[in-house]
Amino acid sequence: MLKTHHCGQLGTAEIGQTVVLNGWVQRRRDLGGVLFIDLRDRSGIVQIVFGPEYSGEALQIGDRSRNEYVLAVKGTVVERDAETVNANLATGQIEVRITEIEILNSAKNPPFFIEDGIEIDESLRLKYRYLDLRRPEMQRTLMLRSQAAKIFRNFLDDQSFIEIETPILTKSTPEGARDYLVPSRVHPGEFFALPQSPQIFKQLLMVSGMERYYQIARCFRDEDLRADRQPEFTQVDIETSFMSQEQLLSMMEELMAKLMKETVGVDISLPFQRITYADAMGKYGSDKPDLRFGMELKDVSDIVSQSGVKVFASVVEKGGQVKALNAKGCASWSRKEIDDLGPFAARYGAKGLAWIQVKDGEMKGPIVKFFSEEEMASLKERLDAEEGDLLLFSADTKKIVADVLGNLRLKIGRELGLINESEFKYAWVVDFPLLGWDEDAKRYVAEHHPFTRPMEEDVHFFDTDPGQIRAQAYDLVLNGYEVGGGSQRIYQRDVQEKMFTALGFSPEEANEQFGFLLEAFEYGTPPHGGIALGFDRLVMLLSGRSNLRETIAFPKTASATDLLSNAPSEVESKQLEQLSIRIARKEKADRSV
Amino acid sequence: MLKTHHCGQLGTAEIGQTVVLNGWVQRRRDLGGVLFIDLRDRSGIVQIVFGPEYSGEALQIGDRSRNEYVLAVKGTVVERDAETVNANLATGQIEVRITEIEILNSAKNPPFFIEDGIEIDESLRLKYRYLDLRRPEMQRTLMLRSQAAKIFRNFLDDQSFIEIETPILTKSTPEGARDYLVPSRVHPGEFFALPQSPQIFKQLLMVSGMERYYQIARCFRDEDLRADRQPEFTQVDIETSFMSQEQLLSMMEELMAKLMKETVGVDISLPFQRITYADAMGKYGSDKPDLRFGMELKDVSDIVSQSGVKVFASVVEKGGQVKALNAKGCASWSRKEIDDLGPFAARYGAKGLAWIQVKDGEMKGPIVKFFSEEEMASLKERLDAEEGDLLLFSADTKKIVADVLGNLRLKIGRELGLINESEFKYAWVVDFPLLGWDEDAKRYVAEHHPFTRPMEEDVHFFDTDPGQIRAQAYDLVLNGYEVGGGSQRIYQRDVQEKMFTALGFSPEEANEQFGFLLEAFEYGTPPHGGIALGFDRLVMLLSGRSNLRETIAFPKTASATDLLSNAPSEVESKQLEQLSIRIARKEKADRSV
Repeated sequence: MLKTHHCGQLGTAEIGQTVVLNGWVQRRRDLGGVLFIDLRDRSGIVQIVFGPEYSGEALQIGDRSRNEYVLAVKGTVVERDAETVNANLATGQIEVRITEIEILNSAKNPPFFIEDGIEIDESLRLKYRYLDLRRPEMQRTLMLRSQAAKIFRNFLDDQSFIEIETPILTKSTPEGARDYLVPSRVHPGEFFALPQSPQIFKQLLMVSGMERYYQIARCFRDEDLRADRQPEFTQVDIETSFMSQEQLLSMMEELMAKLMKETVGVDISLPFQRITYADAMGKYGSDKPDLRFGMELKDVSDIVSQSGVKVFASVVEKGGQVKALNAKGCASWSRKEIDDLGPFAARYGAKGLAWIQVKDGEMKGPIVKFFSEEEMASLKERLDAEEGDLLLFSADTKKIVADVLGNLRLKIGRELGLINESEFKYAWVVDFPLLGWDEDAKRYVAEHHPFTRPMEEDVHFFDTDPGQIRAQAYDLVLNGYEVGGGSQRIYQRDVQEKMFTALGFSPEEANEQFGFLLEAFEYGTPPHGGIALGFDRLVMLLSGRSNLRETIAFPKTASATDLLSNAPSEVESKQLEQLSIRIARKEKADRSV
Repeated sequence: MLKTHHCGQLGTAEIGQTVVLNGWVQRRRDLGGVLFIDLRDRSGIVQIVFGPEYSGEALQIGDRSRNEYVLAVKGTVVERDAETVNANLATGQIEVRITEIEILNSAKNPPFFIEDGIEIDESLRLKYRYLDLRRPEMQRTLMLRSQAAKIFRNFLDDQSFIEIETPILTKSTPEGARDYLVPSRVHPGEFFALPQSPQIFKQLLMVSGMERYYQIARCFRDEDLRADRQPEFTQVDIETSFMSQEQLLSMMEELMAKLMKETVGVDISLPFQRITYADAMGKYGSDKPDLRFGMELKDVSDIVSQSGVKVFASVVEKGGQVKALNAKGCASWSRKEIDDLGPFAARYGAKGLAWIQVKDGEMKGPIVKFFSEEEMASLKERLDAEEGDLLLFSADTKKIVADVLGNLRLKIGRELGLINESEFKYAWVVDFPLLGWDEDAKRYVAEHHPFTRPMEEDVHFFDTDPGQIRAQAYDLVLNGYEVGGGSQRIYQRDVQEKMFTALGFSPEEANEQFGFLLEAFEYGTPPHGGIALGFDRLVMLLSGRSNLRETIAFPKTASATDLLSNAPSEVESKQLEQLSIRIARKEKADRSV
């Protein structure tokens, strides 16, 4: 009995038809000798009815079925009586009266309910992922993911992009995150690495004249995981030759507009706001600002540097800064509520958190007395402070101030309900610094990656002050998440060599690691650039989930384990012998979510 | 100067227009102060002209360019004089007179010509793959590959398949080929394995009710490589629930018809021929027969078993067989030509190769005298032997006879020009045996894989003669290549357990390896089945190439190395420490193609 229809798609149009359905028992009710079963497949649920008047035999067999049994049934679609119509069910106007049934498979009672919104330990869901994925919200998310991939591909195909697969077994490069390694059997003592991104290969494809490349590519990073990280993740990987940064950004905006329209039915306005890295950090304390609300940070260093607040004055003197944000209407917070912000700020490095309430027509709080009237007036003006506001101050290095106030801004904005959760606010962050100083390693590291093209007018800084160089790099942010990042690439050997030198590579090291790329640059490399979009994260935001694991069919836990198959696992010693490796240390580690 | 047009797409329609082109210098000719350059991009080639009358400055700069320089040029499209029209060039009716030029990048002289049909060492092509991929035939192949992926996806999307990504970091399973392993940093002493196929995950997706799944999936096998193997390869991976084998096969036929039509413009007739495994082995000595020509093998055991040819009689007595094929018109071959078949046959295990010429109205050859007239007449009739034919005999075990004559058939068929190289002949091979006896391991092994469903009517043989069980398995063959393979899957725990027992697994071992799958079978698993199509091989056959490496952007050599990046390579000892492994043995191994 092979299905002729999908459960969820039956309606009044099929009344009178004989249909065959295949699906799972969602629930069953026995009402005085008549058996009602909600039968579920990927498309939805339909009520099927067994009664002696349709088929006594079918009723008898149907009666043996339990939740999650797999059934094949044949029956007639009939209209329900007006009083039994179920308005909550897409198929609620009809039911199917069953004349034949085959139980295709039985089922034990599942460890959790196959329905949306269950609140159970995620470990249990992951162990029984094949049951978890039966739940409609998981099926919807995976279908949205499939649809999103299709939209990306169709758009890029239409723009003459060619989909090209790059290797998964590649070469280990020490720059960047930790590599996953794969021992080689044929070459004892040598290893492949799983790619952190197809970066070098996509650049080589540009050298090879493919002009427009894309790939929905699996990438790997052996990093300690957070809620929004997975050891293997997927990116929409794009690279083009002969396009300006502006052309690429516009094209990506059209792509995102199409994605939003076709998946969640939202029209977004183009072009996206462009904000420089300096502005993003300055105003929002973040290079991935959530622009769904304002509440900008204000630099008050100039106002407070001469004030009686010693710590402010000394921070400014040491080259740090003092910034503040205005929590509108929060002057009414209790002392405890305000004090509770301290430990939160401390997580981001704050040594303290000063505050001023604008209340009962005056400024109140422990630090008020250290300010002159003039200083106070300037602060009020700078911070647009009005009756009822709470002003929060952070004084520290630029980085810590940004972290502290940026995170306070998000926390308070969320608590005050300033964020429209149904809004999708995209922006480009541009003009990133090319290099950042690594205090531990005492050297510069690439902010984006070592192949990012510096701004023409900043190249001369390589010789004098590399930290000043701005990159032709751009991040796409959505609601406070980085959902894409890219850059124009270096395509001239001498510039690439300058970059490697700035990163502390000797010419020999640069050659050892990237010699083939440097050599490629000598054979007619076109100007090129590209971007990688975080596919998992985009799907997460589009489907309104808050965890990447909800968007991946078979995700791994924070301890990088698959609770379903129990990978990783011990292997046979013969396998290790063949790979010419030995285990140096065994240890049972935590495998939880 | 950003391109307004593609080089290869300019034609008479653009005459008079000012265009900007970006591309590579294919070649240059200086004809009395006028410079002609063939400018190449992905779309093709166009002739651009520099002369003092268009722009002296442009001529001067253009003159500095050499082969493979990257240029941006602006100029006017003009019609060529009748006598200078180049009929061999798609753009041969026009040329572009250049008024502005920028040399975007210079190029050293490449190590081989950037053109089709070059005959150079493949190692050099792989080392400079970024130049090799500039050659039009490589670009065409990669574009065809991209187009084929799109056709597969569109077809499957239209049939309500959902694209779902399955993990690359999975669990090692000892059944099947050798796994690539990935040491876990978080779990010292444990390993992930790269998937040989998404088999278990796609079955779990069926358990989860996704009903129709597909993925163009990267798979990995650490096997010794041949010309048509790569350590990482791509398959179009498909799984469905609630479909019969026949429904799936028909759907795949439509898919292949669409693929053929849209990529190479060939109409193929449906349905494909279905041939049982027994027939394929019997008639063609192969489970992936090339059906573009006949020349079937004939069993003559009954005729020769009583003959005076001792070796024939004794082979039949020992349970072996004697088969023959008729090489039509080859009686004229010299004795040396015939003798040369011996070493060829020996490669496939033949201890000798007997033959009879039908020549000058009689049967000739060393063994003729051992046959009675009756036997000879029977042979002639069975083999349809006529004047001019050469009959070749192999006597051995069934397997060796099939190998020897199957390969002789292909060799001679090719030499006789019996194969229409432009034909695409698909067929399904069905009714495979479920299990094969492994003489070394002294146990049964799965012919397809351990999840293949036995034919209902053969299940009882598990208890008596497992070798008799036929599988609900099917291979798709094209011109002598296996381009796909699949099966209906076991979906009942008790049948799966019988299968594991037949394969020699103890219940504990089965649980250790596949416990999660066995458990999944208890929660309402639908009947399901699927197929995997060999994407690389299909692209190879569609593009008329003879080597998988020609279809992959960055392939590996037969020694599993990437000659471009030089992967695999040694890694830093710190990396190994973090992974808690040590190298047991180092050795420099051959890295060649």
